[in-house]
Amino acid sequence: MTFINKLQQAWDQNDSLLCVGLDPNWEKIPEHLKEGPDPIFEFCKQIIDATHDLVCAYKPQIAYFSGLEAEAQLQKVCDYIRKACPHIPIILDSKRGDIGSTAAMYAKEAYERFNAHAVTVNPYMGQDSAQPFLDYADKGVVLLCRTSNAGAGDIQDLLVDGMPIYEKVAEMIANKWNANGNCCIVVGATWPEQMKRLRNITGDMPFLVPGVGAQGGDVKALVEAGQTRNGKGLMINSSRAVLYADNGNGFAQAARDVAMQTRDLINQYRHT
Amino acid sequence: MTFINKLQQAWDQNDSLLCVGLDPNWEKIPEHLKEGPDPIFEFCKQIIDATHDLVCAYKPQIAYFSGLEAEAQLQKVCDYIRKACPHIPIILDSKRGDIGSTAAMYAKEAYERFNAHAVTVNPYMGQDSAQPFLDYADKGVVLLCRTSNAGAGDIQDLLVDGMPIYEKVAEMIANKWNANGNCCIVVGATWPEQMKRLRNITGDMPFLVPGVGAQGGDVKALVEAGQTRNGKGLMINSSRAVLYADNGNGFAQAARDVAMQTRDLINQYRHT
Repeated sequence: MTFINKLQQAWDQNDSLLCVGLDPNWEKIPEHLKEGPDPIFEFCKQIIDATHDLVCAYKPQIAYFSGLEAEAQLQKVCDYIRKACPHIPIILDSKRGDIGSTAAMYAKEAYERFNAHAVTVNPYMGQDSAQPFLDYADKGVVLLCRTSNAGAGDIQDLLVDGMPIYEKVAEMIANKWNANGNCCIVVGATWPEQMKRLRNITGDMPFLVPGVGAQGGDVKALVEAGQTRNGKGLMINSSRAVLYADNGNGFAQAARDVAMQTRDLINQYRHT
Repeated sequence: MTFINKLQQAWDQNDSLLCVGLDPNWEKIPEHLKEGPDPIFEFCKQIIDATHDLVCAYKPQIAYFSGLEAEAQLQKVCDYIRKACPHIPIILDSKRGDIGSTAAMYAKEAYERFNAHAVTVNPYMGQDSAQPFLDYADKGVVLLCRTSNAGAGDIQDLLVDGMPIYEKVAEMIANKWNANGNCCIVVGATWPEQMKRLRNITGDMPFLVPGVGAQGGDVKALVEAGQTRNGKGLMINSSRAVLYADNGNGFAQAARDVAMQTRDLINQYRHT
């Protein structure tokens, strides 16, 4: 099954557009987990156990593993998701991008080493740098378009023929890079007005939407702006607000509560 | 000592603007090395032993390690460079870029885990995404500007107020991001005319120049266009042409021969 089909199935099965980002920040992991073996994996495992009926995707952020020399624990997290909730796709958030021969190694890292269903990719180097990812036709390629951070506009908002660069990027992706139908784009939750225009440019292409929760994005505005006509098309990511809802023994239940509230809040604004 | 000072020292001590890229492609590593332990490290070690008096920097490409689950061997490569040739700076080529909290983990990966002197960073997400790297004032931040690949122009050449995006990026870096004086930019060897304009925009900022050798860049044109007034300012990278000059027992000597020829060819066109 392709990533896109898997995502559509998860949207329906869990009635959810919520993606939970697995950003295991060592300072915020409950202390009682840190004494056992593989505490980063154990933390993620308990989050997954508590939320897998509420999400449409998991998005492990590789930096939180590689900064701590914990690639083996990331491997365990990906293996665990595939075993415990095989209906949920894994998006490896690594924002890679390089010339073809090197990009091929990054594609191998994401799709073969970690066995992810999709990976985030930075488009700045152009189509040939994304092609080794795009060539895995069954896998998803989630390209940065308009990101959620405060400085996103430094480059992305520069105007080309009166059109911001991120719209030019979205046009290129929709019209050229998406020959295998496996592209998605990243559109920050903090920019609903931009999201509406990007929806018009890209048809039903799925959007990965960071910036809800800790980053302050407005759920109502973004769902109304970004959803497709059938009330789908979004993977609305929340990381910190879910993962660190509580820092003690009750962290997994607290994560479940926040995930459920967020899913339900999102669902209030979806077309039915 | 800062990265920039270390680079200046290496330019002088080895009379060289040549950077050797360590891209250990498993298919191209000599067969006789593959039977021992840590063959990727061993390959890189022999390249380093054969070339460390001829280069101004080494640039290990992390994708070739992470695609093969070989981060531990990358660690050994970086440790070995620091021990065997402490005067040569290490540029980790990982082209990272993400929101601040995640970028901080990538900076930790590059500067603390692998103990690199500099790291390559993708600027598409804006200044705040680069800031965690820039804040390591003694370390170098090598930002993508105009890359060497065929598709580089898809986004980088779009015109903003009559000026290509890569020039806008260079202006931003030179005028805003370089407050700690630790920025460099990537400018492909395949584009000498662009390089000349970028030299004017950025003053004496060092350029990392990929694309010589296997990618076909013209050494004379790029040195004449990119050097600073004192005949420096460039880290001209060659990876495949040096590493795979021979695929048998003589690979290290062959790498040395190509490295020396390339250094000497570059030096022919430098201002003295």
